Amino acid sequence: MFAHYGGALSQGLVGEDFEVRELLLAPGERFKTARTLHKIYDCAQEFHLERSSLMVALGGGVIGDMTGFAAATWLRGIDFIQVPTSLLAMVDAAIGGKTAINHAQGKNLIGAFHQPRLVWIDPQVLSTLPGREFRSAMAEVIKYGVIWDEELFCLLEQSPRLDQLRYIPPDLLQEILRRCAQAKAAIVMQDEKEKGLRALLNFGHTIGHGIETATHYQVNHGEAVGIGMVLASQIALHLQLWSEDCHQRLLNLIAKAKLPLTIPATADRGEIVQALMSDKKVEGGKLRFVLPRAIGEADIFDTVSLDLVKQILTIGYTKN
Amino acid sequence: MFAHYGGALSQGLVGEDFEVRELLLAPGERFKTARTLHKIYDCAQEFHLERSSLMVALGGGVIGDMTGFAAATWLRGIDFIQVPTSLLAMVDAAIGGKTAINHAQGKNLIGAFHQPRLVWIDPQVLSTLPGREFRSAMAEVIKYGVIWDEELFCLLEQSPRLDQLRYIPPDLLQEILRRCAQAKAAIVMQDEKEKGLRALLNFGHTIGHGIETATHYQVNHGEAVGIGMVLASQIALHLQLWSEDCHQRLLNLIAKAKLPLTIPATADRGEIVQALMSDKKVEGGKLRFVLPRAIGEADIFDTVSLDLVKQILTIGYTKN
Repeated sequence: MFAHYGGALSQGLVGEDFEVRELLLAPGERFKTARTLHKIYDCAQEFHLERSSLMVALGGGVIGDMTGFAAATWLRGIDFIQVPTSLLAMVDAAIGGKTAINHAQGKNLIGAFHQPRLVWIDPQVLSTLPGREFRSAMAEVIKYGVIWDEELFCLLEQSPRLDQLRYIPPDLLQEILRRCAQAKAAIVMQDEKEKGLRALLNFGHTIGHGIETATHYQVNHGEAVGIGMVLASQIALHLQLWSEDCHQRLLNLIAKAKLPLTIPATADRGEIVQALMSDKKVEGGKLRFVLPRAIGEADIFDTVSLDLVKQILTIGYTKN
Repeated sequence: MFAHYGGALSQGLVGEDFEVRELLLAPGERFKTARTLHKIYDCAQEFHLERSSLMVALGGGVIGDMTGFAAATWLRGIDFIQVPTSLLAMVDAAIGGKTAINHAQGKNLIGAFHQPRLVWIDPQVLSTLPGREFRSAMAEVIKYGVIWDEELFCLLEQSPRLDQLRYIPPDLLQEILRRCAQAKAAIVMQDEKEKGLRALLNFGHTIGHGIETATHYQVNHGEAVGIGMVLASQIALHLQLWSEDCHQRLLNLIAKAKLPLTIPATADRGEIVQALMSDKKVEGGKLRFVLPRAIGEADIFDTVSLDLVKQILTIGYTKN
């Protein structure tokens, strides 16, 4: 990312009389650790960052989450700006002020709420985005269609393909980015600290996080969310919350984005259950799930039993 | 601390139907590190702390700061309670929501603002407080007299001794605790995030932190603040902000608490200056100082030159 856009960003800032220092971090979920965080702290110290200084996160969600958490905690909080370069970060991670690093035992266990001063989204940077990254981001886009924005869902259904950027007309791409950002911002503005409504955004994420952990991130975030949405949809079906027709429409969209629909056979189901149990969405020992009621409408349920989840997890496996 | 009061606290909580787990941490500034913080995180994970869980910090300022920061960042923030067991923590660290750990290059560089749900102050626990700890806390008590509460300053002047708990009448002790807590709360409520007024609380701390760093915490926090107040008072004298009489009254109180008035000869002045330069109170390269105008009144000055500070630092040294 830095190779492509770092120079232009730095030059632009220098042109505006900012004093700019750069730190390159390895991307990828497995680097979202305390170790990398402390690299940022060490540089913040070396660069003599002050309370009036600003961190700029140029990159995907991992870079944004870590930079945001470093900014949230350096000198007890300095400003930062998100410049997301992946579709996933543009529609999700960069908006809403959730920052975090992973703990050895689970994702995002250490973090803070810290709003960026600005989120700068430039669709042009997506041209260098690898295909797999693009597809996995579509899972989050589809998510907004299910939980919040029926019109977005229908737009996606009308698009001939969803698996590659070059098949998405620029107008549609812009409309997708706009609608996702609006949905996320609307939800976060009503519930910044995730006391209620914001939890809707976790649709597909509860099991998804477990799949990421259990596959040691071989299944990436978006892919895991896609599988998680399929399984949540199956739970909703089982609980007669929504129709077989809705379930099929969701499966079709996920398949159109060429995202996996099932958990790889190599993933240990016990590990997924273990990760679920230690997930921060567990309150009072009960499993909390976001389940759909209709296209564009979802709710939070605190009553999903572990037995049902285990049963659905079995269905969700790739057959060997 | 835990040996004295941990059992009673745990039993009390269990009696109120809390499920209690305990983690003992080594006290002392040198343990206020990322390493100890991660011990807390590991236990939070092992104990399956949830968003509705609560951390209780039983101990001095270091324990409170670290526990508070762990609570601020575990699952992006859970509740915590301060049960300060040192005079220093009671009058200062436990109130106001500043939490932090140290960076190898400076104190409190990594932290968050996170208000405790409750600060539980029980003067009885001070009976086990070592004498040196009691004396160094008096530096912060004297500070409130200088920056905020003239009546407190006069009360301290009237007390026959300030160097040992047993010479302070219980009524006076209670009045001191009350006035310090009130002063701190009043200041923090007006300026939680230290945009202005709250910086008053840093009276004596700017050079003080440098002394702590340069002596590798051989001079403890309160002692360093005492010396820092003497030096800040000398700067104020030099700038004709306050009178020789006020300066003398401040020196007398610090001496009455049997606190050091000068920097130990073994401390490297260059290291103190270095620590000052990397301190978060440096804005735009200029040194920021809280200087007294009268007993009970202080102001924040952004214009103190490094040369003057170096000159005053020389005066502040113990003669060999």
